[in-house]
Amino acid sequence: MADKKFVEQITSRDADFAQWYTDIVKKAELMEYSSVKGFMVIKPAGYAIWENIQHELDRRFKETGVQNVYMPMLIPESLLQKEADHVEGFAPEVAWVTMGGAEPLQERLCIRPTSETLFCDFYSKDIQSYRDLPKLYNQWCSVLRWEKETRPFLRSREFLWQEGHTAHATAEEAQERTIKMLDVYADFCEEFLAIPVICGRKTDKEKFAGAIATYTIEALMHDGKALQSGTSHNFGDGFAKAYGVTFTDKDNQLKYVHQTSWGVTTRLIGALIMVHGDDSGLVLPPAVAPTQVVVIPIAAHKEGVMEKAEELAERIGRVARTKLDSSDKSPGFKFAEAEMRGIPIRVEIGPKDLEANKAVLVRRDTREKYEVSLNGIEEKICDLLKQIQEEMLVRAREHRDAHTYVARSYEELKDTVENRPGFVKAMWCGDRACEDRIKEELGATSRCMPFEQEQLSDVCVCCGRPAKKMVYWGRAY
Amino acid sequence: MADKKFVEQITSRDADFAQWYTDIVKKAELMEYSSVKGFMVIKPAGYAIWENIQHELDRRFKETGVQNVYMPMLIPESLLQKEADHVEGFAPEVAWVTMGGAEPLQERLCIRPTSETLFCDFYSKDIQSYRDLPKLYNQWCSVLRWEKETRPFLRSREFLWQEGHTAHATAEEAQERTIKMLDVYADFCEEFLAIPVICGRKTDKEKFAGAIATYTIEALMHDGKALQSGTSHNFGDGFAKAYGVTFTDKDNQLKYVHQTSWGVTTRLIGALIMVHGDDSGLVLPPAVAPTQVVVIPIAAHKEGVMEKAEELAERIGRVARTKLDSSDKSPGFKFAEAEMRGIPIRVEIGPKDLEANKAVLVRRDTREKYEVSLNGIEEKICDLLKQIQEEMLVRAREHRDAHTYVARSYEELKDTVENRPGFVKAMWCGDRACEDRIKEELGATSRCMPFEQEQLSDVCVCCGRPAKKMVYWGRAY
Repeated sequence: MADKKFVEQITSRDADFAQWYTDIVKKAELMEYSSVKGFMVIKPAGYAIWENIQHELDRRFKETGVQNVYMPMLIPESLLQKEADHVEGFAPEVAWVTMGGAEPLQERLCIRPTSETLFCDFYSKDIQSYRDLPKLYNQWCSVLRWEKETRPFLRSREFLWQEGHTAHATAEEAQERTIKMLDVYADFCEEFLAIPVICGRKTDKEKFAGAIATYTIEALMHDGKALQSGTSHNFGDGFAKAYGVTFTDKDNQLKYVHQTSWGVTTRLIGALIMVHGDDSGLVLPPAVAPTQVVVIPIAAHKEGVMEKAEELAERIGRVARTKLDSSDKSPGFKFAEAEMRGIPIRVEIGPKDLEANKAVLVRRDTREKYEVSLNGIEEKICDLLKQIQEEMLVRAREHRDAHTYVARSYEELKDTVENRPGFVKAMWCGDRACEDRIKEELGATSRCMPFEQEQLSDVCVCCGRPAKKMVYWGRAY
Repeated sequence: MADKKFVEQITSRDADFAQWYTDIVKKAELMEYSSVKGFMVIKPAGYAIWENIQHELDRRFKETGVQNVYMPMLIPESLLQKEADHVEGFAPEVAWVTMGGAEPLQERLCIRPTSETLFCDFYSKDIQSYRDLPKLYNQWCSVLRWEKETRPFLRSREFLWQEGHTAHATAEEAQERTIKMLDVYADFCEEFLAIPVICGRKTDKEKFAGAIATYTIEALMHDGKALQSGTSHNFGDGFAKAYGVTFTDKDNQLKYVHQTSWGVTTRLIGALIMVHGDDSGLVLPPAVAPTQVVVIPIAAHKEGVMEKAEELAERIGRVARTKLDSSDKSPGFKFAEAEMRGIPIRVEIGPKDLEANKAVLVRRDTREKYEVSLNGIEEKICDLLKQIQEEMLVRAREHRDAHTYVARSYEELKDTVENRPGFVKAMWCGDRACEDRIKEELGATSRCMPFEQEQLSDVCVCCGRPAKKMVYWGRAY
């Protein structure tokens, strides 16, 4: 039914995944390249997805007591330099402001690549007593990292994100918050984006610059490559010592706070595309879809059709985010366009349906069709949206599990990484040298040491020495 | 009742308005100065106000068909320079990025002071046909202007705002949209912020760099100074010509689009303080107040008091944004704190109230007290919130009207501006020289040529030549 000409303009997912991805972001009108290299314009269809992500995550953050704030966009060089690991990690990839108006600045300022330094500077003045703790602050903003290679939503010089920054009286509380926010991310990805994730800890090699521990949610894309989808860091009191963030505790002693930070970005839009999309375009889980239902009149010029379509759109609009496509395009073109945009349910209504008091519902994810009575169609739509949301998660999980392998020897690891894209579970001795070798020779990185450990073997997959941890390995975005 | 020590820390509004303002932003914990000169940290109490402003304005924008997008934060110098008036207006006050990572940039980039240039660049590629019009885009973001003197919320080097940018097929449509968005702002200010505004057009001297017409909403602060609170610009096809934004019209002719832009900023938080605040702190209209009701237990250690306070907070919480202050501070301190934060209604509940099955409600704005039965208290609260919202607007309007004067001669104008702070209505010949003289000699600027014109006299208040327009004059922030 869908208009072939429209659909043929995108590359097949299996033929060239990277090109397919680029085609979708353009044809679904999610973004456009800007004149500034490495920067993008997020168009209405893309930004509406981000707004839904923001709204839901913000609600979940606030349920845990988090408050929103806003920090300056610029960081003085001297402030950035106070924490040694942090500056080493970020200084090479920041943009520097050296002129304000016509005058050169006395000290250059970088555009925030992340805001730990600003939050620390603020906390050092704002926190005096244990009564001021915990601080559970978050901000929604854009950040800049001067990346060499960029891809829409996945890696760009500017991206939108939220960054949570908390300060606590004890190490235990900071650790608890670090894990709590990772759990918020994991639940959000599964329940809202229908994207199953592996929760675990990053190795020291992969952790955030300045953290004592970084935790991550790792998702598997349709092509078998991994995507780090959110991280939560425990800083211990490292930043507090570098920035002098102290408080007077109940015992009247001056102590350093313990801090965390955690963030997710517009990269999640890339994940949605690469987990759920198909050769007809985007496939959006109902929860995050800006439009959940599109009503398309068939033979709209026939008597009563457009009126009924309008009435239906209004009725369904009371229970779901609904649009009526009353444009003068052909039904086939409208179908293709709705598919490209990933709208979960399409409702077709024509003269024959009118006579029979029914309509046709078509699922975007499975293309299943249902003839349903117009009486009580709202309820059917609600049930179907719920069902689509659940089944999309089930399918994504099945795909992930079907592409999760076990390797007990280096040969197995090599063979799997090279021939069967996906996650590979394998044991690791804990030595950085093995990680480096696997990355160099196979192009795979340690994605995480999952919370759910298995004892696959007693020895490291790389060096044969005693194993300490099971690691998820994989090629990644 | 309120704790004196807490309140004495702020300067009296009548004694020193500027210091009173600064005291409130600090004591109500709306913001904190940052280590970066001219930049501020917006704290939770301040950001929550901005979130409510955002949420309500965004809803009103979308009702008129506006969609949100996101444009890059950086503008190449060559792009900024394409529209002559615009670059002249903004180039002196932008921050320049000259290094990306370790490397100097080939072309320097400025951090957006506003995004007309980026939207034009985007539209020049995105718009082909009349079918693509109108474009009704908006973005929420932060912008930078390298101001020399700054004041919290009123003028800072970085501020948060929304900027709408639209493109239309005809001049009429662009003009209609310019006025429509001004109306959205005016209604929003009156209905949501309880701030009455004068709607009108800016003189050429005061219009936006690159616009053919700028419209403004002007509010009067308690000290009689004006605050430009939102602007809406009609660009005609000037930007379209500079940036090559064309479309093929129905008649198959290539034409330039007509554009508008419109914005409001975190400055509105400053307006809320300066219109409604008093010597006890902030006074927030219920619609925008992050917390509308605070429940404060009296003699909380007495049997049943805390339980009843909790129950009340939960019940009231179903109809209004409600907090229970169960901290171990004294009631007097809690009253003072709630007053400083501007919470519209305080509910006091103590042992005697418990016995009598009643509570005491205290309005923040008038300090009026009401003894009310606990039965049906929710309804009473709803009514009172509505009443407060309405009466705050009435009082602000009365204050504004009582401080709006008429001058028919230069002496009258001089005397009024110097001795009776407020708006002064006076006739103007339309000549820039008169505006310049009034500004230079009296420190007053033309705020706007209001839509509601009156013929106060036939001659210009400054030069005595025939008058063309009635203008609102005033000293301004």
